[in-house]
Amino acid sequence: MAMNEHTVRAYGEELNALTAEVTRMGGQAEAQINDAVASVVRRDVALARQVIERDAKLDAMHNEIDRKAIRMIALRQPMASDLRKSLAAMKLAMDLERTGDLAKNIAKRGLSLAETEPMAPLTRSIERMGRLVSQRLKQVLDAYTTGDVDQAVAVWSTDDEVDEHYNALFRELLTYMMGDARTITACTHLLFMAKNLERIGDHATNIAETIHYEMTGDELTGERPRATATPSPSEIGTPEQNG
Amino acid sequence: MAMNEHTVRAYGEELNALTAEVTRMGGQAEAQINDAVASVVRRDVALARQVIERDAKLDAMHNEIDRKAIRMIALRQPMASDLRKSLAAMKLAMDLERTGDLAKNIAKRGLSLAETEPMAPLTRSIERMGRLVSQRLKQVLDAYTTGDVDQAVAVWSTDDEVDEHYNALFRELLTYMMGDARTITACTHLLFMAKNLERIGDHATNIAETIHYEMTGDELTGERPRATATPSPSEIGTPEQNG
Repeated sequence: MAMNEHTVRAYGEELNALTAEVTRMGGQAEAQINDAVASVVRRDVALARQVIERDAKLDAMHNEIDRKAIRMIALRQPMASDLRKSLAAMKLAMDLERTGDLAKNIAKRGLSLAETEPMAPLTRSIERMGRLVSQRLKQVLDAYTTGDVDQAVAVWSTDDEVDEHYNALFRELLTYMMGDARTITACTHLLFMAKNLERIGDHATNIAETIHYEMTGDELTGERPRATATPSPSEIGTPEQNG
Repeated sequence: MAMNEHTVRAYGEELNALTAEVTRMGGQAEAQINDAVASVVRRDVALARQVIERDAKLDAMHNEIDRKAIRMIALRQPMASDLRKSLAAMKLAMDLERTGDLAKNIAKRGLSLAETEPMAPLTRSIERMGRLVSQRLKQVLDAYTTGDVDQAVAVWSTDDEVDEHYNALFRELLTYMMGDARTITACTHLLFMAKNLERIGDHATNIAETIHYEMTGDELTGERPRATATPSPSEIGTPEQNG
């Protein structure tokens, strides 16, 4: 019995360590988003290069969390909520790794953008969207750390804010491109940056779903909320078609 | 002992059923890609709508596979290679679901594209890229069904073919947009379609990695191969910045 209690406690400690590692990875992913966007706004080539280099660290953390979670499942054979915790850690690490890839891609595009004419209004829009997306990731990671399922659901149910930003930015970019063909290359980079930020927002929503599942054992069902005021397909470029 | 053998056999059967379900889901995902691209090429609005509707089926299959795999892990507590098989099924289902989302997005953009002037050379390029990506997914799913790890590695190591197609198409699209501002809206849709196909190619590569891990217990390490003949950053739009 004493042995059993010991085993149970050790397992709890291992799970806590795993959660802490995911939280740390989340902090890194957040920093990568913020620095990637800052490198674009300030045309800071050195910072962009740092973001690109640091991405390998997130890949390593993902592998490490995956390995640990699989080993725990294999050796400890957890039941119910402990199993969900290990599986959730793996899913979160995957979403955070992809978030890192998207931040890295923003930084790479920042390098190219620094070689073109500055377009301050557009980079300010990217900055605003970056701030929103980064806040949502922060909120959902806080929900993970504190075990606050309501906060996770709150993030999940306001998914449409990101879509609205994306749609507005998309329209802004098309207007620029149509007005001056010399801006097309730069605008294409900004278009993909906006798309990357939108996809980071989707990962935050995925994370909210995973947290809900981990804590309740139930799926968050129902269609994800979508922006209501999307333009009609015949309007400019139908940005509501989020990929 | 007889009981034990029975349990082992039942578990093997459950695993086979899970693998078969993933394979079926893979077939559906492949069909979705092919139909999405065909709807764009033929400007077939009815087919595009079918693709969009059918996506819910892939979501349902993903949930079902996830649920079954988790239940198997929880109740059966498999060790080593059987655990890897259950985890691999979950990862594959996730990649296939995202592949389906991307196919759906291509079909949605196809609806908008059908309202613009036809641009045959560009849709032919999308068709070629779609064929390549769909073939790669087929090959890697065959590798999963037959347990052929070498074939999975072969798909993984030729990842750069997709990048090359994407880079060429990207350049082609920028040239069109710069030449005639009236094509910008249509070209933007085609740009995102190309990006979606490239991301489907990435999912095929992920699947190859998962199969390798399932069958060998080792990660496929080393950088993924990249297209070597990418243009320099100062060249048109730096399409090598795959997001």
